[in-house]
Amino acid sequence: MNIKNADTLTGITTTGTPHLGNYVGAIRPAIESSREEGKSSYYFLADYHAIIKCQDPARIRQSALEVAATWIAMGLDTNKAVFYRQTDIPEIPELTWILTCMTPKGLMNRAHAYKAAVAENLEAGKKEQDLDKDITMGLFSYPVLMAADILMFNAKKVPVGRDQIQHIEMTRDIAGRFNNQYGELFVLPEAVVDEKTAVLSGLDGRKMSKSYNNTIPLFEPEKRLRKLIMKIKTNSQAPEEPKNPAECTLFAIYKAFATSQEVTAMEKHYQEGIAWGTMKQELFEYLNQILKGPRKTYHKLLEAPGDLDVILKQGAEKARCYSVPFLEKIRKAIGIQSL
Amino acid sequence: MNIKNADTLTGITTTGTPHLGNYVGAIRPAIESSREEGKSSYYFLADYHAIIKCQDPARIRQSALEVAATWIAMGLDTNKAVFYRQTDIPEIPELTWILTCMTPKGLMNRAHAYKAAVAENLEAGKKEQDLDKDITMGLFSYPVLMAADILMFNAKKVPVGRDQIQHIEMTRDIAGRFNNQYGELFVLPEAVVDEKTAVLSGLDGRKMSKSYNNTIPLFEPEKRLRKLIMKIKTNSQAPEEPKNPAECTLFAIYKAFATSQEVTAMEKHYQEGIAWGTMKQELFEYLNQILKGPRKTYHKLLEAPGDLDVILKQGAEKARCYSVPFLEKIRKAIGIQSL
Repeated sequence: MNIKNADTLTGITTTGTPHLGNYVGAIRPAIESSREEGKSSYYFLADYHAIIKCQDPARIRQSALEVAATWIAMGLDTNKAVFYRQTDIPEIPELTWILTCMTPKGLMNRAHAYKAAVAENLEAGKKEQDLDKDITMGLFSYPVLMAADILMFNAKKVPVGRDQIQHIEMTRDIAGRFNNQYGELFVLPEAVVDEKTAVLSGLDGRKMSKSYNNTIPLFEPEKRLRKLIMKIKTNSQAPEEPKNPAECTLFAIYKAFATSQEVTAMEKHYQEGIAWGTMKQELFEYLNQILKGPRKTYHKLLEAPGDLDVILKQGAEKARCYSVPFLEKIRKAIGIQSL
Repeated sequence: MNIKNADTLTGITTTGTPHLGNYVGAIRPAIESSREEGKSSYYFLADYHAIIKCQDPARIRQSALEVAATWIAMGLDTNKAVFYRQTDIPEIPELTWILTCMTPKGLMNRAHAYKAAVAENLEAGKKEQDLDKDITMGLFSYPVLMAADILMFNAKKVPVGRDQIQHIEMTRDIAGRFNNQYGELFVLPEAVVDEKTAVLSGLDGRKMSKSYNNTIPLFEPEKRLRKLIMKIKTNSQAPEEPKNPAECTLFAIYKAFATSQEVTAMEKHYQEGIAWGTMKQELFEYLNQILKGPRKTYHKLLEAPGDLDVILKQGAEKARCYSVPFLEKIRKAIGIQSL
């Protein structure tokens, strides 16, 4: 098969259950982008990343299932995108080691995640020699794994949040050093920060995130979805009072899914003083109508994990059409080849 | 094929040309040990380690050739030992990443090689924030790769020099953490320090080592071997003066090869005052008679690298009979398996 390098590449860590925020912020734009004619999109379950933070095998496995099922249920066409599990590509850990040898330790010392962990130890009153307490080599060196994820497929663009830009810079740095030493094998990737991408608020009004425990999972059963939406925090304005949509989590979630016409109509309802209870019911019905179909597909997929497995294995096969010969080239460049 | 785990395991970094010191200190005892009935011996070319220090692809490739040819020429029976290139076992870098996630960064902070590099920067007058200058992540984290080399084959015993004991301790530590978290998959390896193993002196009387540039390569052509031996530093004692064999590099090299009878006879010659020139000629003739046959084999092998390749590929196939199913078990334990 003739597989070209990645125009765009995104990884999803397999530790959690996909929620509305993941969908709006990452899954939906990725699926949309994969539909562009002539564009090659690589999306992968980042399970080698998952084991950095999560030592619960059942959780890792379950999350891989849920993430894979979510992407398919939401409409990813795996004939268009290359959709695979990182752990099905043995070339990635191999490239990780090769890049490890090209990465200055000083670069990793400056990584945000590591520095944040050290700062936490400092705050906890740890002494100079204990500032690395509870920090694993996985946390310390994962920017190298990320570089391998990207460079393995010579990805041109990597959509990231602001906090991830540094990793792309590091990838460029490592790739540049390699190219300098061994010849121009790697494309330097570009970070793409989409400022328009909605950051969804969660139940408590803060950013929807697993770490805040404020998420609305995408495929909760109908009743449970309704219950969660009813729990979303609102202010104490009485029914009939005109309300400000800009400060309302319910409206923000609605807006992330509705058409612009629907949004305008809803803004009018806010001015007219829609009651919070009514709005919650409307939001539930709106979301439920969108999610009903995919939810069914999702649960069907979860019940037949073997089918998901086949899809992912086929994706890995496609990805390896690129990674196997490319790693061969990289190995040759550094002096590892048949005698 | 039914392949058992490693009773003993040794890696050889492929950056140099094997010399008399390597032979006496590592190759010969390994070959002898591999002949023991019922013992499973794993020996490998450590080319993933080589790229930490050496960015010269031609050197890496040439050294792999020379090391492989040396072991075979010196009599390694690859039907008895499992003899392979590390880079032919993709399970090793994968296990490296898995172990990376189980390794505390603090453990690596204490590794000798890293601390020595920092000390060097300190001596060179570098400031606090520059102490990691020119230190790569490869140097910093190679004890994890070494742990993977050992644990991939559940090696029981690892013959090491004193300076390597720490790495085996680290391997035990990492393996213990994994076993604790995920169940008892790994054997905790033992370091075997053979105090009797001769450390050979080089041309200048210091330990024979590539880094001192004082080595006698094993398979130099006859003339060049003679020339090198003639260059070995001796004291200024006149011919006929009785000489002390204990302080003599020539004698030490002779002793490392000769039978005890021959050694006793040579001691007598020393008491009788053998001339340095005569002793050098005797040593040359003695070594040459031992090395003549293997030298021929060695050069024949170098001329047919394809044959060496086949031998190493067969070795890798044998090794993978162990590593492939074992990695599958390890993956399953951490939650990475078919959905």
